Amino acid sequence: MASDLGITPRAENYAEWYNDLVKRAGLADNSVVRGCMVIKPHGYAIWELMRDALDGMFKATGHQNAYFPLLIPKSFLSREAEHVDGFAKECAVVTHHRLMDSPEGVIVDPDAKLEEELIIRPTSETIIWHSYKTWIQSYRDLPLLINQWANVMRWELRPRLFLRTAEFLWQEGHTAHATYDEAEEEALTILEVYTRFAEDWMAVPIVAGVKSDGEKFAGADHTYTIEAMTQDLRAIQAGTSHHLAQNFAKAFDVTFQSAEGKEEHVYATSWGVSTRLIGTLLMVHSDDKGLVCPPRLAPVQVAIVPIGRKDDFVRVCEVADRLAAGLTESRWHGLPLRVKVDKREKESPGFKFNDWELKGACVRVEIGPRDLEAGQCVVVRRDEGEKKTAPLEELTDVVHAELSAMQAALFDRALAMREANTHRVDTWDEFKAAFAGEGGGGFVLAHWDGTRETEQRINEETKATIRCIPRVPLAAGDVEPGACVLTGHPSERRVVFAKAY
Amino acid sequence: MASDLGITPRAENYAEWYNDLVKRAGLADNSVVRGCMVIKPHGYAIWELMRDALDGMFKATGHQNAYFPLLIPKSFLSREAEHVDGFAKECAVVTHHRLMDSPEGVIVDPDAKLEEELIIRPTSETIIWHSYKTWIQSYRDLPLLINQWANVMRWELRPRLFLRTAEFLWQEGHTAHATYDEAEEEALTILEVYTRFAEDWMAVPIVAGVKSDGEKFAGADHTYTIEAMTQDLRAIQAGTSHHLAQNFAKAFDVTFQSAEGKEEHVYATSWGVSTRLIGTLLMVHSDDKGLVCPPRLAPVQVAIVPIGRKDDFVRVCEVADRLAAGLTESRWHGLPLRVKVDKREKESPGFKFNDWELKGACVRVEIGPRDLEAGQCVVVRRDEGEKKTAPLEELTDVVHAELSAMQAALFDRALAMREANTHRVDTWDEFKAAFAGEGGGGFVLAHWDGTRETEQRINEETKATIRCIPRVPLAAGDVEPGACVLTGHPSERRVVFAKAY
Repeated sequence: MASDLGITPRAENYAEWYNDLVKRAGLADNSVVRGCMVIKPHGYAIWELMRDALDGMFKATGHQNAYFPLLIPKSFLSREAEHVDGFAKECAVVTHHRLMDSPEGVIVDPDAKLEEELIIRPTSETIIWHSYKTWIQSYRDLPLLINQWANVMRWELRPRLFLRTAEFLWQEGHTAHATYDEAEEEALTILEVYTRFAEDWMAVPIVAGVKSDGEKFAGADHTYTIEAMTQDLRAIQAGTSHHLAQNFAKAFDVTFQSAEGKEEHVYATSWGVSTRLIGTLLMVHSDDKGLVCPPRLAPVQVAIVPIGRKDDFVRVCEVADRLAAGLTESRWHGLPLRVKVDKREKESPGFKFNDWELKGACVRVEIGPRDLEAGQCVVVRRDEGEKKTAPLEELTDVVHAELSAMQAALFDRALAMREANTHRVDTWDEFKAAFAGEGGGGFVLAHWDGTRETEQRINEETKATIRCIPRVPLAAGDVEPGACVLTGHPSERRVVFAKAY
Repeated sequence: MASDLGITPRAENYAEWYNDLVKRAGLADNSVVRGCMVIKPHGYAIWELMRDALDGMFKATGHQNAYFPLLIPKSFLSREAEHVDGFAKECAVVTHHRLMDSPEGVIVDPDAKLEEELIIRPTSETIIWHSYKTWIQSYRDLPLLINQWANVMRWELRPRLFLRTAEFLWQEGHTAHATYDEAEEEALTILEVYTRFAEDWMAVPIVAGVKSDGEKFAGADHTYTIEAMTQDLRAIQAGTSHHLAQNFAKAFDVTFQSAEGKEEHVYATSWGVSTRLIGTLLMVHSDDKGLVCPPRLAPVQVAIVPIGRKDDFVRVCEVADRLAAGLTESRWHGLPLRVKVDKREKESPGFKFNDWELKGACVRVEIGPRDLEAGQCVVVRRDEGEKKTAPLEELTDVVHAELSAMQAALFDRALAMREANTHRVDTWDEFKAAFAGEGGGGFVLAHWDGTRETEQRINEETKATIRCIPRVPLAAGDVEPGACVLTGHPSERRVVFAKAY
């Protein structure tokens, strides 16, 4: 049952809590078009902050942005065998280019049938590598380090706002290199960018590692991933970086002349994060009162609520505006603070407190006439909820300190949750028990014999999948040899199993 | 015939010059998908600068960003009668959602036919007003001031890179208001934003005015426009702001309860600019050597070319890097300068000079070993081409001054061109003569009787259209009454005719 705020408590029904949160906090709506979403201003503001932060990191590592077409000729998808298997089942197909009037109203004009059907990009490797064929001639054209911010479409049967939608927004990097090693270095550079973004901006601790062959990208040599743990103890894949080797270069015949004059196929990477990051953020930090947003990505970092009636209210509002101006002028992490003064006259202070908790303002500042006389105000951090008193003239410093403390506290809390729910399991009975029931089960570190058959059987029996083989072991013992939890066959190291979103 | 640079001179063939420019300067490519383009990094960098500038202006005038679905149910388009007429003939239609394997290869899965066809948004009024129905209940929800950055698609028969492409990038604002007057004020606020952007950032003088009914947006009450003049003396519509009155609110039944408790339909505006702005920029400023970009929107504002051999080159490069760091740290119009040091070893200085002219670096700085000894360098402005000497320690000040001077000079040059090619014409013979031949003909200010029939006949006989009725007369005499240039019927004022892109 939903609370007064209209949000079902997590403990009661986590899936409903999530949907209520997204809608009540004004982040997104379902669209009339099946599987698509409307990203509302409050949700889009989070995406803009994510985009700007990531874009800065991409440019700092030498990447440029470009834009490639939305539509891809159907035949392009089939050039890379694994790629077509991975995407053909879930793509939107454009077959005509005109509507016309008819006695039944507007219909598709049958004379406007396309010679070759076009698909809406589910990802852009194929259309981009078609361009790269003309862009790349010589080793001097390499490396080619390009990123695109775009919408993509994958027809989803069970959509969930932000987590899995038919259309979503993302960035997709597509790079070309002269050697395997350079492409490998690029894939790992991006894995590090994603890790830094997740941990430093999103305050989400992640496990970075490589996917098993069964879980890698359709067309990749291997796929790196960052995996986070949600509050219902599932894994969520937050970003992937693929080493494509020469697969797409061969499919699109992209070669270059090396410094030694030899004609060779190019090596490639691709990598992406999407609006799913917003879903990850919500799943890791938010609570039964609404959005909890790490300060570096919060649309509203400070909400000032002036309290009082008539003349008092006017006086308090003046001070609130002055405080807001001072906060906005100050720089935290190099950016002006995002501050709102809530002057709505028809709403009570209590309503406003709840509303800003719902919308995830990181710090709430309350000021009434008595506070004004005392030269102070009340400061409440979203994740703590405790009222503290701050002198008005020190407010900017106090707010900066609270934001920094909150950013760190959210990360620490999420890390503690993950550590408390990461288990090492050595028998099949223990393994099954860990994933029994409808709940998550956390991260289970277990030995695996390295075969796709075993991976599949484990998945069928427990719904758990291999999330990744961590690059850095979570504990030293994780890389000691052992016996596969299902088959007993030898295993070099533990891998991370979880039920996943 | 194209020059050494591969660019056909404007005087020889303006259309070929434009295409050569776009391709040789690395701005965009045609795509394999008919009518679509690939925006290359150098072109996309201009778009990013435009987007950031406009986005700041939208936010400063109270707008928020959001994101609505790419796909629109076919039936939505038909709800507004003029709107469907305007867009049905040029939209991409999605009919299926899956491909499948077959003996002939991958084909569209006939079992995956959609119940209702979806169209790729040609513009988003319909899908957005469907959402607004649930978002707007009371006068307290108004005004609703939302903008979206998105890709849209209009099936074009005669595409031209940036100017008219099947897919293009744009922003579309969609606002809702309680009264006609508030919506009118909004439409004009945006017209002013577009005017300021065109003149202050793009250095493009524009005529702002209202469209005739024959040229307005499909579904609008009236449409405001900004119109620029290209070097081949045509008009180019650079942005439009539409007052939609209650047309879409009625089509989607969006009402609100007024402060007095009355249920009323909402008033609306929509407005947009697109990647066509890049085409406008090119058409107004660039020359036979390549891109000429106003400094505020130039991807590379300063190109430093170190000159010398072996040890000299190393020494000069060190100084060039130091100068570049100093320039990048400095702020011009509040932003760090965009600077490149061209250290390519296999290219001659002469090649590099041409290359940076082609790519539109605003200021070129040349430094050789002798310059170093003399503590100076050579500075060349893209639009002037004259070599000037500048002391190294004053370089930042000199560059700032040159950029400011160039920004102003481009505007002044474009304004002078427009004024020299703006004519007032009073007889039909003069009018026809002005637009005779294949060329442009400039802006012709003539009297018009206000009817759609006359407008159409003028267009049929001369290919000229009414670009706008200026909000501010270009000369005082333009608003004196007169006689229609075609029919001789009374006319209140002169309007702007031109052949248009």
